[in-house]
Amino acid sequence: MLRSLFLALLLVPALAAQDRYVAVNARVYTVDETTPTAEAFAVEDGRFVAVGTEADVTGAHADWPRLDLGGRTVVPGLIDAHAHLMGLGEALLQADLVGTTSTDEVVERLVAFAEDVPEGTWIMGRGWDQNDWGGDGAFPTRQDLDAAFPDRPVWLGRVDGHAGWANTAALRAAGIDPDAPAPAAPEGGAVIRDDQGRPTGVFVDAAEALVANAIPAPDEAYYAEALERALAATAEAGLTGVHEAGVPLAVLPLYQRFAAEGRFPIRNYAMITPPGIAPFCDRNPDGIDEPRLVVRSVKVYSDGALGSRGAALLADYADDPGNRGLLFQDDDALEATVRAAMVCGLQVNTHAIGDRANRQVLDAYAAAIDATGGGPGRHRIEHAQILSLDDLERFVALGVIASVQPTHATSDMPWAGDRLGDERLKGAYAWRRLSDSGARLALGSDFPVERVSPLLGFYAAVTRQDADGMPLGGWFGNQVLTRAEALRGFTLDAAYAAFMEDEVGSIEPGKRADFVVLSQDLMTVPPEEILDTDVVATYLDGAAVYEAD
Amino acid sequence: MLRSLFLALLLVPALAAQDRYVAVNARVYTVDETTPTAEAFAVEDGRFVAVGTEADVTGAHADWPRLDLGGRTVVPGLIDAHAHLMGLGEALLQADLVGTTSTDEVVERLVAFAEDVPEGTWIMGRGWDQNDWGGDGAFPTRQDLDAAFPDRPVWLGRVDGHAGWANTAALRAAGIDPDAPAPAAPEGGAVIRDDQGRPTGVFVDAAEALVANAIPAPDEAYYAEALERALAATAEAGLTGVHEAGVPLAVLPLYQRFAAEGRFPIRNYAMITPPGIAPFCDRNPDGIDEPRLVVRSVKVYSDGALGSRGAALLADYADDPGNRGLLFQDDDALEATVRAAMVCGLQVNTHAIGDRANRQVLDAYAAAIDATGGGPGRHRIEHAQILSLDDLERFVALGVIASVQPTHATSDMPWAGDRLGDERLKGAYAWRRLSDSGARLALGSDFPVERVSPLLGFYAAVTRQDADGMPLGGWFGNQVLTRAEALRGFTLDAAYAAFMEDEVGSIEPGKRADFVVLSQDLMTVPPEEILDTDVVATYLDGAAVYEAD
Repeated sequence: MLRSLFLALLLVPALAAQDRYVAVNARVYTVDETTPTAEAFAVEDGRFVAVGTEADVTGAHADWPRLDLGGRTVVPGLIDAHAHLMGLGEALLQADLVGTTSTDEVVERLVAFAEDVPEGTWIMGRGWDQNDWGGDGAFPTRQDLDAAFPDRPVWLGRVDGHAGWANTAALRAAGIDPDAPAPAAPEGGAVIRDDQGRPTGVFVDAAEALVANAIPAPDEAYYAEALERALAATAEAGLTGVHEAGVPLAVLPLYQRFAAEGRFPIRNYAMITPPGIAPFCDRNPDGIDEPRLVVRSVKVYSDGALGSRGAALLADYADDPGNRGLLFQDDDALEATVRAAMVCGLQVNTHAIGDRANRQVLDAYAAAIDATGGGPGRHRIEHAQILSLDDLERFVALGVIASVQPTHATSDMPWAGDRLGDERLKGAYAWRRLSDSGARLALGSDFPVERVSPLLGFYAAVTRQDADGMPLGGWFGNQVLTRAEALRGFTLDAAYAAFMEDEVGSIEPGKRADFVVLSQDLMTVPPEEILDTDVVATYLDGAAVYEAD
Repeated sequence: MLRSLFLALLLVPALAAQDRYVAVNARVYTVDETTPTAEAFAVEDGRFVAVGTEADVTGAHADWPRLDLGGRTVVPGLIDAHAHLMGLGEALLQADLVGTTSTDEVVERLVAFAEDVPEGTWIMGRGWDQNDWGGDGAFPTRQDLDAAFPDRPVWLGRVDGHAGWANTAALRAAGIDPDAPAPAAPEGGAVIRDDQGRPTGVFVDAAEALVANAIPAPDEAYYAEALERALAATAEAGLTGVHEAGVPLAVLPLYQRFAAEGRFPIRNYAMITPPGIAPFCDRNPDGIDEPRLVVRSVKVYSDGALGSRGAALLADYADDPGNRGLLFQDDDALEATVRAAMVCGLQVNTHAIGDRANRQVLDAYAAAIDATGGGPGRHRIEHAQILSLDDLERFVALGVIASVQPTHATSDMPWAGDRLGDERLKGAYAWRRLSDSGARLALGSDFPVERVSPLLGFYAAVTRQDADGMPLGGWFGNQVLTRAEALRGFTLDAAYAAFMEDEVGSIEPGKRADFVVLSQDLMTVPPEEILDTDVVATYLDGAAVYEAD
């Protein structure tokens, strides 16, 4: 599948290569309030120059080439307001073994995966669980892998990360003699042995390092390969923009090189991390503002995650009395970081899950805005997941954007109530409340924590149900967004959250011609059919960066 | 309380009596897409002539008197798209005894109620339940009422309608000697007697007729009094329009008389009933089209109610195998009525609760539109409560309006699941699905079945919760409407459903100046506070028809 994506990316369709054309026979949702729907639009030099009825647009551009969209639905290029582009690439450099039902299936997936992995590199994978394979739950062995991979090292992480499974080539690469008694396991680890004391290939916890340390350190080729995979996946998903929630400064030149080479089919609004504030501001007093890479914001953390009870709460976890989670730093330290960022003109985008963390961030923003003027404004809370009802209206008062990920609600719903109890759930994943208070919501996926497709987030936002339509009525269903709101959250409001709303986010004359062609009208199909929507093509600056076969 | 309403109605505020004025210092939700919010508007000769910022509107009308709205929120005059105006009036001519906790409280309520009842008429009430009064559950007696009402007949229906409670004056008026042995009860009834055989004042079932037959038949004075009460209640509730779902032709002259006398502070879109089609069309080939009374539609019934299992379903009731409810008439008979109405130019508004009934109506509309051209179009289904998912998209295809009552969902939610089961609930009260399919929703209350205030419907529409906020997340919460949609459903879309959208339904220049002043911003307050919203004043044609003290 990856191979075909690469091909799609490389193909330059005849029409899109033209300087100008008129797209016709489409059902266009513009996300432009003055003209919410249209039938046709004209593109010239990578920008929309006309949007309207087919008669009007074709009449005004009679001799321009036509792009017949076959009655399909068109929406603005989708923007993921919170995701990890390089993280996705790294994940895509590992085979996905989740859900395998046998070692045979593991090998099958690995063989297919290895087709697209450069010769000479390790085959990495993750997600196996021997309990899913029937049988007695015994660990697999290196011999299960050796027939298919006699020479290339293979290293596969268990679904929980607590064990690794190597083939014989990986043992050799790690300096472990497969035919001798296995080395001793370090403290906190175990090396699984066969009846003759030799290593079976499975290493538990601390012993994983015996193999993992031998994996070559990532080099630029690794990152370039990861990036290429991530970009293929985002284009296929209909994404024309991403807000990358935290990148080391060292990665930025790679992005710029890809962009210069015409190999960066996305607009990346990349957030630096706090250690980067001073050096970045020294080197880039005006930020980076290129068509495909904009850097003018910083990603900060206030707390951890809800699932692991790392989210900082105002009261005890309902399922762990005495535990209120943890803030990453005290109030003064957070405020100092926020002030430093604002002073240097950066937008501040702070991760906050628990209600205590969200309050800490709102307090820090309020104080720092008072003290510094707030820099560029439009500061954001990433996730904004659990809010005290008392804090909800502060988003509007402070002009803070809620950057939320709808699929987190449907992923967390099986256990979020255990952590929080009913009363706190009123302010959790409370999109309808936020929107009704007047707050702006930018929507994202948090990939690779969740899957890449923004259509999954769209579906979760408007149903609050899993893919099987459960629970009936949605989980805290009255907090749904409308489809128009969800589309806006993944387009124009995401663009606003990156100061890009004058350039992208809607289909209107003057803006860059970023748009997505969809297989069906996701604004009117029954909710059960939303997830059947396919991305037919993704256009960036008027040119196709992805086309389905 | 009723007395103070009458006073409010009679008061003509100094400003509103003026021909023109500028309303300032307001938070105006216009329901006009081109200018969704405004701060001020100018009114002249009963119509809006300017809407916009305070600077613009006051600048353009510098010497006009000001109506300072104190920063309050203004919305278009609210329109109840399905209610029973005269039914409300008749209900208001009876004292409400629901929830009384003692006979003393019954008497207290009756005394207060009697203040506003014309001398010489019976005091009527309903809703008592002796099981709520503590004690042994014994029936009350006429003597409980005689001290307060020695001379005026009193007749009070039990909460279930299965018993009536008279005072001694009522017995005398009915020709029953209170000091003699009680008359024999008719078959299917019982007359409660004291230890000497005299009537205690309580008559059960068929025996109720012994007293009830003596109640004077309603005359025009009775209907006029009922109407006056209903109109006071609707003005107080912020209603400037109502669609009266079924009126006998005989009532229309009373409405016209009230309107001519300036005593009809509402625009009534009154639906006639099928027996009236032929005579009405003979007499009024163009319908009735007056500013306060429009008649050009007919109310038809397809089935009964869900609670009593009278709704016609495609499959058995979940809690009554073998029972699918009942259609009021066969398909041919319904279609004949629909065709007759369309031929004479009437809009057809058909009551349909069950999925079988809704399908019958959609089929009848489709066939009749094919055969006749459909008359004026914009045909409606009243309630549209339980829909097969297969029929849902037919509303858009046929241009049929869904006239729904949000409070029915929250009233029915405790038991609707028992009747229908989970699968059918997917298409029940499915406002979000309907709206997303592109269908237009006109919202109403069905008063006096539900309470009058459209704010209750607004709250139910946007929360799908009861007044206590239960269930958390709403009942099938992902079917909520947004506040903007709910407001539109009670204003512009209700106006559209009555062919009045060019005259009323939004605050924009040229339209009649119907508007409501609210105590708080119901579009942004937390959902828990929506029901705290008070109507401060109701304006019709630019003049106040209700002002709170």
